[in-house]
Amino acid sequence: MTGKQAYDVVIIGGGPAGLTAGIYTARARLRSLLIEKAAPGGWIVNAGVVENYPGFPQGISGMELADLMNEQAAKFGMETLTAEVTGLELKGEQKLVRTTEGDIVAKAVIIAGGSDRAKLGVPGEEEFMGRGVAFCAVCDAYFYRDLPVVVVGGGNAAINEALELSKFASKVTAIEGGDVVERLRLRNVLSGEKSTLDISGIFVATGTKPNTDYLKGVLPLDASGAITTNEKMETEVSGIFAAGDIRSNSIRQVAAAIGDGAVAAIYAEKFITS
Amino acid sequence: MTGKQAYDVVIIGGGPAGLTAGIYTARARLRSLLIEKAAPGGWIVNAGVVENYPGFPQGISGMELADLMNEQAAKFGMETLTAEVTGLELKGEQKLVRTTEGDIVAKAVIIAGGSDRAKLGVPGEEEFMGRGVAFCAVCDAYFYRDLPVVVVGGGNAAINEALELSKFASKVTAIEGGDVVERLRLRNVLSGEKSTLDISGIFVATGTKPNTDYLKGVLPLDASGAITTNEKMETEVSGIFAAGDIRSNSIRQVAAAIGDGAVAAIYAEKFITS
Repeated sequence: MTGKQAYDVVIIGGGPAGLTAGIYTARARLRSLLIEKAAPGGWIVNAGVVENYPGFPQGISGMELADLMNEQAAKFGMETLTAEVTGLELKGEQKLVRTTEGDIVAKAVIIAGGSDRAKLGVPGEEEFMGRGVAFCAVCDAYFYRDLPVVVVGGGNAAINEALELSKFASKVTAIEGGDVVERLRLRNVLSGEKSTLDISGIFVATGTKPNTDYLKGVLPLDASGAITTNEKMETEVSGIFAAGDIRSNSIRQVAAAIGDGAVAAIYAEKFITS
Repeated sequence: MTGKQAYDVVIIGGGPAGLTAGIYTARARLRSLLIEKAAPGGWIVNAGVVENYPGFPQGISGMELADLMNEQAAKFGMETLTAEVTGLELKGEQKLVRTTEGDIVAKAVIIAGGSDRAKLGVPGEEEFMGRGVAFCAVCDAYFYRDLPVVVVGGGNAAINEALELSKFASKVTAIEGGDVVERLRLRNVLSGEKSTLDISGIFVATGTKPNTDYLKGVLPLDASGAITTNEKMETEVSGIFAAGDIRSNSIRQVAAAIGDGAVAAIYAEKFITS
């Protein structure tokens, strides 16, 4: 892409919030561009089965759900650019979105870039993701009902979950199993003693980090780096909206991200046409 | 139902907001009852095709979407009662929900009873609903792109739509057509002169009325009768939540109702377990 491309709406991030915003703005016949650095779907592509997104009583894989949403937005004319956003600047009434593939100008911007979850960084963690390694109790606790699980982490993130392995003052050194997770290897941080613990699930609750590095100095962020909005998804900067997990106090659920995306799109449309 | 039934959560209203709340609370293993006076689905059962609910790129009928959500909530154990809610009272920590089928006690209540849309009350209106008669420009304008439509109504509801037939100081006296709407019969309110107008769609924008009659004196309502909440869907009464079109400033979209329902359920669960 060379030169500056001009759009009505630029959506940053291709998870459920961004894709929903795209469905709404494109269907409202606004020229809409979604910028995503990886494949569409955001965090949910890691979810083997999403059971609590309304409309899919048999559950649906996160990847498949993302593909359906992407197809829907594309059908209404949403364009997609694979690039990383490196900056957001105000140019009078216009917004300038700087990306690794060039600059883009938009009348309104919807920021839906999600948040990354901190990982433990131990052997087995990546391998068993979705097969015993989980990052969200609300999403996945149901799959482990009546089965032994542990929650690993410290601080508010872990305290907000049901259990804390930190009570045992142990550090997880490896996650092991066959098809699914079967046990953890632990080291007592006081005595150095090593042990194993048979479990069916491990919930990693080491916190999340909103993808807002490029927004420092552009938008006010809360202490966790998330974007604060009002109920219209408006940020403090006119014409810039935020939706989904990147928002302050998000419940980090697909259903809520969808709602945010629709609200942001409707108020972005009102902003542009008023 | 005789005597008082006790639940963790009672959900009032079986539209997308209520069904989503039920999916979440039942899946969180809370004893959950949804009370609906008619069939599940709420207003969306009137929608022939829902194109903008993420996950269904080919569109889905409102009735079918409602059935899927209901099946999903039932799968996780949500119970349903067909009854009309006539009152809501506080009894210490408990909430007493009065219905035409008896009283029910709950620790938390999620009010998702939606709103009714005022009708014109002219011949043809019911007959052509979903086939040229529409009630929501955001939802249905796309179906009529490049086709002649009129918006009928007065006051803010109509002003917020794109056009106003009231500019012509005419009254719609009948909606006519074959398979779909083809024309309106009009009467000029000043001269009394009668005429016809060929159109493809008529958007009825005569306002909405939240179903909150039984809540007067229980919860603070806004000027339109809608329930005000914070971003956690909490009302001013501890343990009572609201979600969906019954909320103040709702955008009246399935996507947003879904988000509201998930948020309300998560904070209702926190309320009960804390």
